[in-house]
Amino acid sequence: MALRDILAEKRAPRAGTSAAVASLREAFGERIVTGEDVRRAHAHTMTYLPTQSPDAVVFAQTEEDVQRVVAICAANDTPIIPFGIGSSLEGHVNAPLGGISLDLSRMDKVLAINAEDLDCVVEPGVTREALNAHLRDTGLFFPIDPGANASLGGMASTRASGTNAVRYGTMRDNVIAVTAVMADGRIIRTARRAKKTSAGYDMTRLLVGSEGTLGIITKLNLKLYGIPEAILSGVCPFPSVRDAVNTVIQTVQTGIPVARIELLDAQSMEAANAYAKLDLKPQPSLFVEFHGSPASVAEQAETFGMLAEENGGGALEASTRPEERSKLWKVRHDMYWASVALRPGCRAIATDVCVPVSRLADCIGETQADLEANGLIGPIIGHVGDGNFHVTLLLDMEDTREIDAAEAFMARLAARAVDMDGTCTGEHGVGQGKRGYLSAELGDTVDFMRAIKHALDPKGIMNPGKIFML
Amino acid sequence: MALRDILAEKRAPRAGTSAAVASLREAFGERIVTGEDVRRAHAHTMTYLPTQSPDAVVFAQTEEDVQRVVAICAANDTPIIPFGIGSSLEGHVNAPLGGISLDLSRMDKVLAINAEDLDCVVEPGVTREALNAHLRDTGLFFPIDPGANASLGGMASTRASGTNAVRYGTMRDNVIAVTAVMADGRIIRTARRAKKTSAGYDMTRLLVGSEGTLGIITKLNLKLYGIPEAILSGVCPFPSVRDAVNTVIQTVQTGIPVARIELLDAQSMEAANAYAKLDLKPQPSLFVEFHGSPASVAEQAETFGMLAEENGGGALEASTRPEERSKLWKVRHDMYWASVALRPGCRAIATDVCVPVSRLADCIGETQADLEANGLIGPIIGHVGDGNFHVTLLLDMEDTREIDAAEAFMARLAARAVDMDGTCTGEHGVGQGKRGYLSAELGDTVDFMRAIKHALDPKGIMNPGKIFML
Repeated sequence: MALRDILAEKRAPRAGTSAAVASLREAFGERIVTGEDVRRAHAHTMTYLPTQSPDAVVFAQTEEDVQRVVAICAANDTPIIPFGIGSSLEGHVNAPLGGISLDLSRMDKVLAINAEDLDCVVEPGVTREALNAHLRDTGLFFPIDPGANASLGGMASTRASGTNAVRYGTMRDNVIAVTAVMADGRIIRTARRAKKTSAGYDMTRLLVGSEGTLGIITKLNLKLYGIPEAILSGVCPFPSVRDAVNTVIQTVQTGIPVARIELLDAQSMEAANAYAKLDLKPQPSLFVEFHGSPASVAEQAETFGMLAEENGGGALEASTRPEERSKLWKVRHDMYWASVALRPGCRAIATDVCVPVSRLADCIGETQADLEANGLIGPIIGHVGDGNFHVTLLLDMEDTREIDAAEAFMARLAARAVDMDGTCTGEHGVGQGKRGYLSAELGDTVDFMRAIKHALDPKGIMNPGKIFML
Repeated sequence: MALRDILAEKRAPRAGTSAAVASLREAFGERIVTGEDVRRAHAHTMTYLPTQSPDAVVFAQTEEDVQRVVAICAANDTPIIPFGIGSSLEGHVNAPLGGISLDLSRMDKVLAINAEDLDCVVEPGVTREALNAHLRDTGLFFPIDPGANASLGGMASTRASGTNAVRYGTMRDNVIAVTAVMADGRIIRTARRAKKTSAGYDMTRLLVGSEGTLGIITKLNLKLYGIPEAILSGVCPFPSVRDAVNTVIQTVQTGIPVARIELLDAQSMEAANAYAKLDLKPQPSLFVEFHGSPASVAEQAETFGMLAEENGGGALEASTRPEERSKLWKVRHDMYWASVALRPGCRAIATDVCVPVSRLADCIGETQADLEANGLIGPIIGHVGDGNFHVTLLLDMEDTREIDAAEAFMARLAARAVDMDGTCTGEHGVGQGKRGYLSAELGDTVDFMRAIKHALDPKGIMNPGKIFML
């Protein structure tokens, strides 16, 4: 179990860390902080994992700063833990061996918008909302939306996705290239700005999702998209999760280029009603969004409505008006808080898996039964177009038996997804929390990942203890 | 220059090769062939590069066969060169150190079609046409079309793409997972069948495009798509390449989900007219295709037509009728032969680069001027939605001065693309032909690629001399 694994790992700080901190203090002056609050804040995340603070936090402002931190840490065998805004969910910013948390949030410049090429270049501390605010007058937008206003460097590092992925893909698909400082201090740019390339190994995709264990991203070249002429959003209730999922399968098969298709289970809908004093049908429901021309979104919605009806769904309540659409998506976006309100005083711990969509209804059904059998409360919401869903467990963090039960549940959920030919993590990454599930999912593939880690970071200074056990 | 580089490389066969051949003969009997014709046929490709034959060709039928070949070659320090159908363009199947060509064309089974999940599992020797023939009654198709009826294993290994990439992406985007035999003989499956995952390093994307230098693909899990309800194809002439490219930029920015948008320059159009006795306007032209519902393709074509007109383009001559569409695309697909007919007795040598689309007109313009200044004939066609274009040089292979001029031109073309923040190879791969350009494009990134190569294939038996110099 992940929690026990982590607690059992010996926290043996590297010997060179205090020398590194001294050198960094010379180099960075007030931009290195060792106060406990700041250190804890850089390890504390929205997880059930224990907080493991770094020895110091350095606030980088430039690529050269990052390079200096890496040089000093490399010389002193000291771990470096890159930090964006700390919204990751699997302990990615914890410091099990101590070391330096490298806060990149001040590297927040949008460096270039190439409107004709539909791309941009940003520093890693730019958040997705900041980028979209910057783009406001260009007619362009960056679609990836993992929920939190995460930093784009962090989103790339964890291969984040979210509600729009069914149409626009994940960070994997939307990062054209990154610039990164590697463990030996060298700066590489993984690709140029062409939309496609077959020039050697795909180092861009290797760094995307590597969780800071191979290099530290200092620039990202990202794809942008034209804001659709028309957007139509709607919600549609179903008799069962299976009926909703069948509608999803048919929607995708029919080639409707749905931009978002989100499932909220009955418990989530009840939570939303209670939280926002709404009157939505307390049934499993699909929240959908269509992008295109006015005629195209109308046609997409009509076809979707027909498919929903064939599967026993209710009428699609839909609108193209921005205020109506915002109201609708606010229900979805507030689900975290609505879930928390189901059980005041609890913590909400989100976990995610992803399975082939043909197995999604089975996986959700078995998971709901598992929750019930174990007395756990866990509303389910899903990016169902991709076969990806989240369980938000509502836990009393003081009750160790409940935490044990939750951890056992999460392990069964991961195993269930893998048994169905899916993955233990669709979009949250591995971090510390899911290291124990990787071998069951990927077998010897993990050894080759380790070989790459060792080849590119022989001293093991880059975010050690993430993806792989210490 | 690539040709001289290759000729200058010492061909020092590995000492263990004859022992490997003997062991393979015991294991494979008639399925190992050492006759010169077969060996040459497995190295001979559509390139200007010298043929470097392997010592033997093994015809694999199963994954276990591949594993046995790797075990024997590893034990005898003998190179393995995977072979699909031999349609690669940069010397990927040459054997500069001799060794074993591993012919995978008999591993041609479609193992699974998962219609609900829009994916399939195939062996590497299945060609894209064979897969689409197999899919005929399912309503599904596999879109990637590099021109040749290539094997899917080869397409993955070279990160191929082609005319549909502007909408459907490249092999990078359409391979969900691969199974591969690695250099140490272990079999890995890089991911499960979920549409997305953030479970560790993206080993799928690392193997896609690795040109057989890291492992040998034995199974591919590929995305499929519903055949669109309506398809509309058309052709539209423009006063200049720049006007055509501006139309492309606006088409993509407007969010028209164009499925194909191909540029043929004036010389290509003239060649097509002469070859097929057609009466097309001998001007730079865009061949386009739209996929969707009948209403949607009509709307897309109308919007495109307006954009084309604003840029001085002629009327879009378009049709949704299959026979008309086939006639149109035959012009594009026959361009290789139409080009060859421009200069009877010559060889047609295709090279490709890819630049940000904002630089595409500049890049094509400078390239046309370069061709003219150097007395070279090279019609240009391009997957212009991606900023990717090909020059098909028509060369007298007996004239060494002409070959030298062509090589110098290709080097300048690669440098020009890189100067414009593009890549020396959009979709052909590196092979032997473009190794010399990688450092200028990617700098130290190449060192980290080499480190990965060394970590995963320490003996250097996997397709040596490709991507990296020997």
